[in-house]
Amino acid sequence: MARDNGVSMAVVRRLPKYYRYLSELLEHDVRRISSKELSRLTSFTASQIRQDLNNFGGFGQQGYGYNVEDLKTEIGKILGLQVEHKVIVIGAGNMGHAITNFRGFENSGFRVVALFDKSTEMVGTFIRGIEVLSIDTLEEYINEHRVDIGAICTPREGTQEIADKLISCNIKGIWNFAPVDLDVPEDIVIENVHLNESLFTLSYLIHEKKKAQRKGNK
Amino acid sequence: MARDNGVSMAVVRRLPKYYRYLSELLEHDVRRISSKELSRLTSFTASQIRQDLNNFGGFGQQGYGYNVEDLKTEIGKILGLQVEHKVIVIGAGNMGHAITNFRGFENSGFRVVALFDKSTEMVGTFIRGIEVLSIDTLEEYINEHRVDIGAICTPREGTQEIADKLISCNIKGIWNFAPVDLDVPEDIVIENVHLNESLFTLSYLIHEKKKAQRKGNK
Repeated sequence: MARDNGVSMAVVRRLPKYYRYLSELLEHDVRRISSKELSRLTSFTASQIRQDLNNFGGFGQQGYGYNVEDLKTEIGKILGLQVEHKVIVIGAGNMGHAITNFRGFENSGFRVVALFDKSTEMVGTFIRGIEVLSIDTLEEYINEHRVDIGAICTPREGTQEIADKLISCNIKGIWNFAPVDLDVPEDIVIENVHLNESLFTLSYLIHEKKKAQRKGNK
Repeated sequence: MARDNGVSMAVVRRLPKYYRYLSELLEHDVRRISSKELSRLTSFTASQIRQDLNNFGGFGQQGYGYNVEDLKTEIGKILGLQVEHKVIVIGAGNMGHAITNFRGFENSGFRVVALFDKSTEMVGTFIRGIEVLSIDTLEEYINEHRVDIGAICTPREGTQEIADKLISCNIKGIWNFAPVDLDVPEDIVIENVHLNESLFTLSYLIHEKKKAQRKGNK
């Protein structure tokens, strides 16, 4: 799928990988890297890496390669990581806990500022020092605070209504963990993490390998 | 990417979605559905749905559509869901908790049979009635029990070593939540859930929309 700016989603989804590898290189004090070395590390081909980065202006220098720190900074800018993102988590169950406690979340400028749940048992408890608020106060909260991303960690039921509320309060990004395909206007960005589907895909691939092996053994 | 059996990963990744929608239809007592109705529901085109299912033998009848229960059963078989999958979770932190407590896991025949952690504080505690065992006993456990899937929920460090252990103990499927691209032999199936990359992709898309809007407003 080509996007408005002509960059395909396949390229977009590789950017965070580059960012991760560059961060690791910097941690190991590697300051400079060729597309060939980056290729070995990421298992993308050197030509794909050059093509990917050319979408955004290149950044490499013939005969020198890439300056790791500069490239990380540039990709970080492309990913929008230079600004802080305020995140609210809706649903304070296991996944809501995991997201709120997620390592590497804050290091990259994402900050959980509030949690919401409908269960009276959960409301008033704290996760990582953040109080769980009543879902009834969701719209009030968003209208009074800046919120960039709503992470939906509720069970299936009622997810669309929550998304509708987030959108009506002008939230532009939804990180959806509920096993539901949300119906949203075009100007809203949705990123789904469907664990069930991921697990079923794994199951399919294991099953297929086993079938292929049985065939091979005959 | 086309796979050994000629079915592309794009098709494979749609199968769990079909399975989910068919399960929901059955819950609402819908017994029969046309590809057109299924298209409205899933937002895939009717012709794509027919093509997808034709990869596995069709299942529809001209003028009748699909029998929901039969189609769900068939897709379940294709996904390998008719057999129970025994899952071990390595890393009993937040994500390990979330996976172990994950709804819809057991309903689909996936059962967490053991958890492992290296922290002496975690070892001996229970999650959902399942004792957290020492990571030092990982290989011993696998050699004595049937295990189908290893879910790696550890931080980055040491993930490859854990994967190597799982593989040496003959585990064929790895569900990897660690922010690492694992290096594994060809006969091993890996399914990654990289939350950081998912979040960064969301951030990119929000950032891009904002840029487009600013342009539009000029």
